[in-house]
Amino acid sequence: MSPAAQTNLALDMGSSPDRPIGVFDSGLGGLTVLKEIINLLPGENTIYFGDSGRAPYGSKSPETIGRFSQQIVRFLQRQQVKIIVIACNTASACAYDLVRNTAGVPVIEVVAPGAAAAARITRNGRIGVIGTRSTVESGVYIRAIRQSAGRPVEILQQACPLFVSLAEEGWWDNSITRQIAETYLADMRSSQIDTLMLGCTHYPLLSTVISETMGPSVRLVNAGGRVAAQVRQTLLDRGILNETATPGWHRYYTSDSVSRFEKLGGAFLGETIDGACQVDIEQDSV
Amino acid sequence: MSPAAQTNLALDMGSSPDRPIGVFDSGLGGLTVLKEIINLLPGENTIYFGDSGRAPYGSKSPETIGRFSQQIVRFLQRQQVKIIVIACNTASACAYDLVRNTAGVPVIEVVAPGAAAAARITRNGRIGVIGTRSTVESGVYIRAIRQSAGRPVEILQQACPLFVSLAEEGWWDNSITRQIAETYLADMRSSQIDTLMLGCTHYPLLSTVISETMGPSVRLVNAGGRVAAQVRQTLLDRGILNETATPGWHRYYTSDSVSRFEKLGGAFLGETIDGACQVDIEQDSV
Repeated sequence: MSPAAQTNLALDMGSSPDRPIGVFDSGLGGLTVLKEIINLLPGENTIYFGDSGRAPYGSKSPETIGRFSQQIVRFLQRQQVKIIVIACNTASACAYDLVRNTAGVPVIEVVAPGAAAAARITRNGRIGVIGTRSTVESGVYIRAIRQSAGRPVEILQQACPLFVSLAEEGWWDNSITRQIAETYLADMRSSQIDTLMLGCTHYPLLSTVISETMGPSVRLVNAGGRVAAQVRQTLLDRGILNETATPGWHRYYTSDSVSRFEKLGGAFLGETIDGACQVDIEQDSV
Repeated sequence: MSPAAQTNLALDMGSSPDRPIGVFDSGLGGLTVLKEIINLLPGENTIYFGDSGRAPYGSKSPETIGRFSQQIVRFLQRQQVKIIVIACNTASACAYDLVRNTAGVPVIEVVAPGAAAAARITRNGRIGVIGTRSTVESGVYIRAIRQSAGRPVEILQQACPLFVSLAEEGWWDNSITRQIAETYLADMRSSQIDTLMLGCTHYPLLSTVISETMGPSVRLVNAGGRVAAQVRQTLLDRGILNETATPGWHRYYTSDSVSRFEKLGGAFLGETIDGACQVDIEQDSV
């Protein structure tokens, strides 16, 4: 066993079901994943970190995203989380290996579960993937879908950089958002895909517009529910699933102001967020 | 003389005309200001820092923007700059006092020169101000314009958060940008303003669309040229203006990847950017 694996095992053995699930994102998008985790695992305690002070990640370089992700992992380690969920496609695409190698606890990312679902759902073998520029440029979905499919599939990708800004602006369903969707998705519409992967945790908020733009023959895939299922299975396998009937507690941290995080985040989560804390994690050298 | 003023004087006395002008922004927008400085003062050496790794600033809290600005000032101090230009309206609005008190060299910000111009230009005393959410919420333009005007003026403000994303996406003049402008500027158009302050250094890139939306009776005010004039006057007053006929050198630093900064930044500056450097300034405790 490698020294790194020994360290991981040693840290992991100290886990108990009571410890929280750690979830992080560049900002608010990951709350759409947290929502699915809370729905599926209501007894679990959770800690969410949204890096709103440095959001968005989608147009930044892989090196920068790696550095930010490692700082967040150190913060979550100090909170004694038993598992870490990278609830951000850009960070999953650019920093998963880095995070997995240093976390000391199991790490779940959002790309593989979504890719597996898309590969399973498609009938005609033509799949579209939309995401941030960094996610699309990483090619991570192409590799993950091909690996899951086990047969030839055709994959068309499109970066939709403004979608995150539109989601954060609250323009989830208006005429401008529809036109931007039509502009970004023009090639997708003429390509006869039957499955569209929402490769960014912000995009479920725009799913009405995206679905109307693509038409009824295209099925949208949102990884949130599948990520939650994978979290459950991983905790079950390790004997650290919290199956208490008492509802868990949920704590929220952000690198920007609490008031904006609570106000906007509540809309993403679909529930009121109270008592979020602002933390400065930049001093963590990596 | 206060101890702080003594320190400032001591540091400032060490300045010489050869030292560079330091210019910073949340990312690329400040390059529209740098462009004016280089045009007016071709013999000056310049150092530009774009915080693209943490951009945009416009929706972040004043505390976060203050912390980021102070880290950048420390970086510029190490580069021995003779003057600092805050080429970002959000940072000018939220962090000017902080920067001025710690810089040790003269600090020029972008709000006062633009506000003075708007107050001078208006004929009917009705002025519009557009900017990021943080700039608008700070109320800094209202105070600055009122102070400059010396007579009652009516000021209408509007936050246009998507404008920065549109500028960075390169959608400077298309039908979607026009519709977003019409949505944001609807109240401005019916308010009979005759002067519109572009209160964000990204907005000059969208000036064609903004101008067409507002119509020919509204004059747009872009602070860039006035900021350059103020830099010149300040250097002249202090005897540290570089009047050499040899063109100055221009160095570029960013907190994100160099390739993206150079590619997009060249479009903002209107000239090719070569040899930019990536720096990590987060470890600077403040």
